[in-house]
Amino acid sequence: MDPQAAKTPSPPYYCVIFTSRRKPGIEDHYYDASARMLELASQMPGFLGIESARNPEGLGITVSYWESEEAIKNWRMHAEHLVVQKKGRDHFYEWYESRVGRVERAVSFKSEK
Amino acid sequence: MDPQAAKTPSPPYYCVIFTSRRKPGIEDHYYDASARMLELASQMPGFLGIESARNPEGLGITVSYWESEEAIKNWRMHAEHLVVQKKGRDHFYEWYESRVGRVERAVSFKSEK
Repeated sequence: MDPQAAKTPSPPYYCVIFTSRRKPGIEDHYYDASARMLELASQMPGFLGIESARNPEGLGITVSYWESEEAIKNWRMHAEHLVVQKKGRDHFYEWYESRVGRVERAVSFKSEK
Repeated sequence: MDPQAAKTPSPPYYCVIFTSRRKPGIEDHYYDASARMLELASQMPGFLGIESARNPEGLGITVSYWESEEAIKNWRMHAEHLVVQKKGRDHFYEWYESRVGRVERAVSFKSEK
């Protein structure tokens, strides 16, 4: 199993697609906050998994998967997460868009070679 | 407007979250196919936008946005796309997971600084 892949159950479940452009020059603070949020999120009830990728020039997509909309709301309102959300707006991001959706179906493929 | 951001309308709309790990050493063929698929997808009826990020070590996330499930189906079944999907399984990807969802709400932020 690829450690960077989210191992999700059969749909339906929910997702948060967080697309962002990071400001240049804030790498260290960003990585600390990002690692801590990953640790926190994965301890939340209803957390199913998370996947993240960022282009070298700063455009990133993080998708987290959740059992329910309630679980997403609890995560969004978590006190420490709220502090980091504000830090993100004040310091880390030029822009972001956060989309909440309901995953209806999924197909997976694994190479045999 | 950031050219790498998808400019989507108010929800609801649909998304395809395509997470993949690319095999090493196939960069040139992959970029050609990827650029062509981007061009093709953006001409499909119901296409709303696309966002893509890949970590240097090969984990990538591409999210495309669509007006309807019908539009997603038409894109999945497009003849040239089917050929590239097979090429992806045969050559490009160690694994992938493709998830189709319905985006229910979205929040955006733009820094003023």
